[in-house]
Amino acid sequence: MSKLPNVTTSIFTVMSKMAVEYNAINLSQGFPNFPVDERLTDIVARLAKENVHQYTPMAGYPPLMNKIAKLIQESYSRTINPDLELLVTAGATQGIFTTILALVKENDEVIILDPSYDSYESPVLLCKAKPVRVALNDDYTPNWETIEKACSEKSRMIIINNPHNPTGKILNETDFLQLEKILSKYPDLLVLSDEVYEYITFEEKHISAHTKNFLLDRCIMVSSFGKSFHITGWKIGYTIAPEYLMKEIKKVHQFLVFSVNSISQFAISEYLDVVDVNLLGKFYQEKRDYFQKLLQNSRFELKPCEGTYFQVASYASISDEDDVTFCKNLIINHGVAAIPISTFYSDHKDQKLIRFCFAKDDFTLESAAKKLCDI
Amino acid sequence: MSKLPNVTTSIFTVMSKMAVEYNAINLSQGFPNFPVDERLTDIVARLAKENVHQYTPMAGYPPLMNKIAKLIQESYSRTINPDLELLVTAGATQGIFTTILALVKENDEVIILDPSYDSYESPVLLCKAKPVRVALNDDYTPNWETIEKACSEKSRMIIINNPHNPTGKILNETDFLQLEKILSKYPDLLVLSDEVYEYITFEEKHISAHTKNFLLDRCIMVSSFGKSFHITGWKIGYTIAPEYLMKEIKKVHQFLVFSVNSISQFAISEYLDVVDVNLLGKFYQEKRDYFQKLLQNSRFELKPCEGTYFQVASYASISDEDDVTFCKNLIINHGVAAIPISTFYSDHKDQKLIRFCFAKDDFTLESAAKKLCDI
Ligand SMILES: CSCCC(=O)C(=O)O
Ligand SMILES: CSCCC(=O)C(=O)O
Repeated sequence: MSKLPNVTTSIFTVMSKMAVEYNAINLSQGFPNFPVDERLTDIVARLAKENVHQYTPMAGYPPLMNKIAKLIQESYSRTINPDLELLVTAGATQGIFTTILALVKENDEVIILDPSYDSYESPVLLCKAKPVRVALNDDYTPNWETIEKACSEKSRMIIINNPHNPTGKILNETDFLQLEKILSKYPDLLVLSDEVYEYITFEEKHISAHTKNFLLDRCIMVSSFGKSFHITGWKIGYTIAPEYLMKEIKKVHQFLVFSVNSISQFAISEYLDVVDVNLLGKFYQEKRDYFQKLLQNSRFELKPCEGTYFQVASYASISDEDDVTFCKNLIINHGVAAIPISTFYSDHKDQKLIRFCFAKDDFTLESAAKKLCDI
Repeated sequence: MSKLPNVTTSIFTVMSKMAVEYNAINLSQGFPNFPVDERLTDIVARLAKENVHQYTPMAGYPPLMNKIAKLIQESYSRTINPDLELLVTAGATQGIFTTILALVKENDEVIILDPSYDSYESPVLLCKAKPVRVALNDDYTPNWETIEKACSEKSRMIIINNPHNPTGKILNETDFLQLEKILSKYPDLLVLSDEVYEYITFEEKHISAHTKNFLLDRCIMVSSFGKSFHITGWKIGYTIAPEYLMKEIKKVHQFLVFSVNSISQFAISEYLDVVDVNLLGKFYQEKRDYFQKLLQNSRFELKPCEGTYFQVASYASISDEDDVTFCKNLIINHGVAAIPISTFYSDHKDQKLIRFCFAKDDFTLESAAKKLCDI
């Protein structure tokens, strides 16, 4: 009867709820716990008393759209036409859902990597299309050979997530060369690139899909101010796509939400004049390094983290429990909430791996690490 | 190729854009032009500096959900369980889209009245279901006989809009009796009731679908704070449905948007403690009466208006132009923007009718009326 029979309560909801219940330190769901930049909250406080409370235009508040185009120009030296190639969305999630609904048809195949963030598969199923899961390599790099093998004339879209949640892996130039090779064989294959952590990379610079010439005419890039400005609750994101695809995406957007929270759009538009997104990588790199140092003497084995604000850790030397059980007991017995990595896999395979969110103030990281080192 | 081949730029976008271009008084798209209640903007200004900027739970900010349940109790003496029967959405539009996507399947039929607000048909088409349009009577009451004739075993949903945009018509007890008769024959037929103007009715009291016993187990009610609190830009609405349907709606919501703008939810939650929604009807009734009085000596013939903030008017004695042309020329030659009623009809039939929005301050209504009386 259900159109999404396999969907249950999201792991982020489950773990955040349990964290509250047991008064645990919440390193599960990805959101910052430190204050938002005062310059931004000052803008909101002032704007509240201004004329910012009615519908913005359907595709977004025009000054914000111009500022996003400027941001893209400054970040990637890429020129986009905000009128034709840009859409402001209620978070990246809405951008992803709307894109898939607009562009994927019944019986199409959509390639989704494994593990993956959990919001790609359901919209594909609602289109009566087929998700085709392809495993990442053990080091979480894409296995382009198996991806190519999974491609066929039926493939409509491949979804990439770069930087990658939950593994923190980022794509390099070689990855894009391999992707180009595959795409050259399938002229109708689109790439949906979820880049919500685009400004949160560390040693290596982020390569944005829509800056690649071979992707210009077939890439839909989705991002979010929630991650970049520590405002996950605002639900303001944006989608970039070539005009012929954006036209279809906007048609769905018009009826899915029509337009997006106005005061938030006005505020981000002003904030973009003063904020420097290039500081974000350094900010989170320091948090990552600090968190890794704090856990140095723990029994967790930390995996490499090239981007995002997530740290994957193995507890294999601590426990034989499957990762969901381990996470629940971690909350109950040790007061720290994390996310089991199995939930990002289509087959829920347990690898004794969990994910910590380190987008937290130092005190929180220290308190959590103290508990984790005691295990 | 397009999944929505017939969708073009929305009439609201077209007319609001033209209004700006020609510096016309904008009585087209439905949004208030007077300031928002200071009590609400004060709340926002204060909250901006508080901890309100991260994800709220998926179904909504719990205190807001409790307040909505209280509002429903006070307005309609109906008890809902906010945990199981309520969802906070990014505007009513997202509630409508999400409901249809969750509950309507391929080849289902969905009954949509004619004329109708424009956001019902596209989500039905995206489900590969069939919209079945049924004409309202000439006085804009539903024709329950033809509605019954349109029903069959294939009918999955009937969409009602009460109070009705664009006609300002509201449903009475007899309408609900007739609806009950039809539903008794089709146990699987659901009712989606778009009640975004629920608090904007005049001589007659609004009857909310979810207060009717026979609808309790099969009605999905959608509403919006945008209309009730003069904040159309905020995009915060809510959906009420019985648990077994809400479960499915939430599954789609989780991947469509996950959660909704946080600071807006916190603010509305506080505002609900102090605002009295029962004043809204009187407020808009005075506007309606004033606007009607101002147009008394014009050549427009005004139709009855029982609810919403829209006034339908005939220009038959003024011009032979079709209503789209008339509206465009009204902007260009007379500096007033309105909406052609033909755009709400599936066959776009021209009846020399246009819609004015009277959710405007007195000065705007007076200035517009002056121009309209000169025609
Ligand atoms: C939308 S809840 C999930 C938040 C998030 O991005 C994550 O924790 O992976
Ligand atoms: C979402 S734009 C349309 C606004 C409105 O409700 C109307 O004008 O009918």
